[in-house]
Amino acid sequence: MANTSPGYSIQLRAEASVRGTATQEIVTTITEAGALVHGLTVDDSGHERLVIDLTIYTSSVAHAEQVANAIAAIDDVTVLEAVDRTFALHEGGKLSVDPSAPLLDRDDLSRAYTPGVARVCLDIAANPENAKRYTVKGNTVAVVTDGSAVLGLGNIGAAASLPVMEGKAVLFKQFAGVDAWPVALDTQDTEEIIAIVKAIAPTYGGINLEDIAAPRCFEIERRLREELDIPVFHDDQHGTAIVTLAALVNALKLVGKNIEDVKIVISGVGAAGNAIIQLLQAEGARHIVAAGRSGIIHGGETYTDAHRTWIAANTNALGQSGSLADALVGADVFIGVSAPDLFGEVELASMADDAIVFAMANPDPEVDPKVASRYAAVVATGRSDFPNQINNVLAFPGLFRGLLDAGASDITTEMLVGAARAIASCVGDDELNAQYIIPSAFDENVAGAVATSVAAAAKEAEGALV
Amino acid sequence: MANTSPGYSIQLRAEASVRGTATQEIVTTITEAGALVHGLTVDDSGHERLVIDLTIYTSSVAHAEQVANAIAAIDDVTVLEAVDRTFALHEGGKLSVDPSAPLLDRDDLSRAYTPGVARVCLDIAANPENAKRYTVKGNTVAVVTDGSAVLGLGNIGAAASLPVMEGKAVLFKQFAGVDAWPVALDTQDTEEIIAIVKAIAPTYGGINLEDIAAPRCFEIERRLREELDIPVFHDDQHGTAIVTLAALVNALKLVGKNIEDVKIVISGVGAAGNAIIQLLQAEGARHIVAAGRSGIIHGGETYTDAHRTWIAANTNALGQSGSLADALVGADVFIGVSAPDLFGEVELASMADDAIVFAMANPDPEVDPKVASRYAAVVATGRSDFPNQINNVLAFPGLFRGLLDAGASDITTEMLVGAARAIASCVGDDELNAQYIIPSAFDENVAGAVATSVAAAAKEAEGALV
Repeated sequence: MANTSPGYSIQLRAEASVRGTATQEIVTTITEAGALVHGLTVDDSGHERLVIDLTIYTSSVAHAEQVANAIAAIDDVTVLEAVDRTFALHEGGKLSVDPSAPLLDRDDLSRAYTPGVARVCLDIAANPENAKRYTVKGNTVAVVTDGSAVLGLGNIGAAASLPVMEGKAVLFKQFAGVDAWPVALDTQDTEEIIAIVKAIAPTYGGINLEDIAAPRCFEIERRLREELDIPVFHDDQHGTAIVTLAALVNALKLVGKNIEDVKIVISGVGAAGNAIIQLLQAEGARHIVAAGRSGIIHGGETYTDAHRTWIAANTNALGQSGSLADALVGADVFIGVSAPDLFGEVELASMADDAIVFAMANPDPEVDPKVASRYAAVVATGRSDFPNQINNVLAFPGLFRGLLDAGASDITTEMLVGAARAIASCVGDDELNAQYIIPSAFDENVAGAVATSVAAAAKEAEGALV
Repeated sequence: MANTSPGYSIQLRAEASVRGTATQEIVTTITEAGALVHGLTVDDSGHERLVIDLTIYTSSVAHAEQVANAIAAIDDVTVLEAVDRTFALHEGGKLSVDPSAPLLDRDDLSRAYTPGVARVCLDIAANPENAKRYTVKGNTVAVVTDGSAVLGLGNIGAAASLPVMEGKAVLFKQFAGVDAWPVALDTQDTEEIIAIVKAIAPTYGGINLEDIAAPRCFEIERRLREELDIPVFHDDQHGTAIVTLAALVNALKLVGKNIEDVKIVISGVGAAGNAIIQLLQAEGARHIVAAGRSGIIHGGETYTDAHRTWIAANTNALGQSGSLADALVGADVFIGVSAPDLFGEVELASMADDAIVFAMANPDPEVDPKVASRYAAVVATGRSDFPNQINNVLAFPGLFRGLLDAGASDITTEMLVGAARAIASCVGDDELNAQYIIPSAFDENVAGAVATSVAAAAKEAEGALV
């Protein structure tokens, strides 16, 4: 069977004669075409004809079309409709703004709107901190993007980024009860983005920066953290770093190695790579070598940007130079947040025993995970169709739940490390194995565990300031 | 009884002995204090004690406190809790952002988020108009304010304006199924506001400007209408104008006068006054005299701002000068969008027979409506506790419903006039009387009638361009 997926699934309605074996023929046709019957129901049945409703997973749009055509070619079968399920789910958008409580009568209207609302306005004008109590600010996060680095799609702009931002908002609500709203900005100017986020901030209790290209994202995050009194979080950096650390904690436990001792190779020195390096170091990692497009980052070279300069000064103590392949020789851990197909069996074979490989480039990993599994003790990717998906959804909903619950104004490294440990702890010692180092995205305990840990760290940080 | 209102209502829980007449005494105490028992339930009852839950309308915060103290002073009665119902309704904010459909499993997640969502992003990148179909843009309006002219409260800023913007969003959803989101901006710079609204526009199918001070609001609206491809509407101007015209259409019908013939005096030449003049003229009004703080606007004077200059050139053909009182002599219609207590019985008596008085300053009208009722045939205000409330909620939800349904990119004067006529038509000839010239805010037919009219005008306008 080809690599079918729900992302390329269709809903197909077919009509066939009651006599004969149309249903079986349809299923056989789908299977022979390399697609998967995910569901089949007979929707309507008469004396002569029956209507069959099918959910079919295919591997591409062309494949879906080919499957539908093959079904239509069956004798006595008519295809009534074939709908792309991914687009169907997006019809009308994925979010709804609803009243917390309906206004049933003039009494409700007088309190929620004029004239009653005026007293609440005046209260907030006199006591600005009450905005968190009496408005959406207390539970709402802005999902801010400029559309410049959306998924693996690159610079597709604000409008085209909206489905991702809406999806993120859905996850915020579903996993952690956080209200989130897409702020897709039709500008890619750093100063303009900073000014806009500052201006819209009164409505929000937190800012989640999303899919903003490096190096712009660093400056935007740094400045907003300085200039706003609500937490600011760039998910592509710190969300990825949290879940990577969580996975690494459990993977190291499995192979019996310590984070202080292992040699870790990071491929990718963009937004995610930087944040991962810093968070692993916060957890005790000492032997990190990072590689970018031009090879290993090392102290012997001069870099033009602040981030590579920082990496050169703070990693690779032995001053190794060369290619990614050179770095991988003897490495215990590979963490890739870079590009597809960077290495193969030779490099895998050169790694240390019981190697750990996190190949997270999306949609195509740095190394084929099936091949990697033959050499490494633990393999993880960013994909949902392999075991051990390093998925940010494990981090951001619970993180902001904790920040909002604590009324936090800042995010500290302790919170990020705490969130990672909380995620790791959701895999019990009796559950931990090479195929299960990280909880499922649908594990109901994760967001709560992360929130509790983050809120506790926030309260401790606040206590430290007093 | 004092002027009690639900905006100053409290929820009070009291405990009393089962023996005796505590419940009656409580009700008597409330009534004697000039408050109103809106509801009473016995919540919990034992052999010895019972718990009484009361909803009490009072006339002010001090009055509510006085009532609660009076109840606490009754023998054998203990007040357990007294909650301000207006603030209680605002706890946690008034809006919730919800998934249109929940993500039940990995199949849903793969379509709503990565990897499936990427195809929807690419489709919008290739066909930008599909954003209206596959994202919230198709049904969502931004409620944009800078907090500079909030209700009658003035320049209270962005954070303090949020409860009003949230209330507006609640009304959008409840009355017309429109998703609306508050955009309360922490800037009052005209150019910055324009730039920000343009930048956030990809998420929205329409912009509702709200509570932005004049003259800034004129420039912001004009520029955004020019520079955006989605409809932009300043509710304080055009919403008020629509509902005013609707009320005037019915009031004139009642007194048997024509809009072309009547002398109309407008008090207030700010945002609302300007828009009202233009809309009444579009409907045929020819004899309008406007008065500002310094008296009647007339062609004999030079004004420094564009809007007063326009009014001087386009109203008051007879060149009348003097005070508001001078203007009112012989006038058929008074429309006030200005300030409290500007005139009284003398001026009312000087108006024409069967005069119409719309005194809409909030919360205190230009003339006491009870006094006005003794002189004028029809009296309306902006208040919910008098008959004939000129309430923008009759216009904006249906207007945007129609604009979104038609996929309109602009708002025309024809749409505004059509909306006003649609509202007026919701009062049947058999229902029309001096106390009922305008439908109730809860009339379920209004939003649909407005939407149908606006969508039809939008389609006609589009046809005219082809």
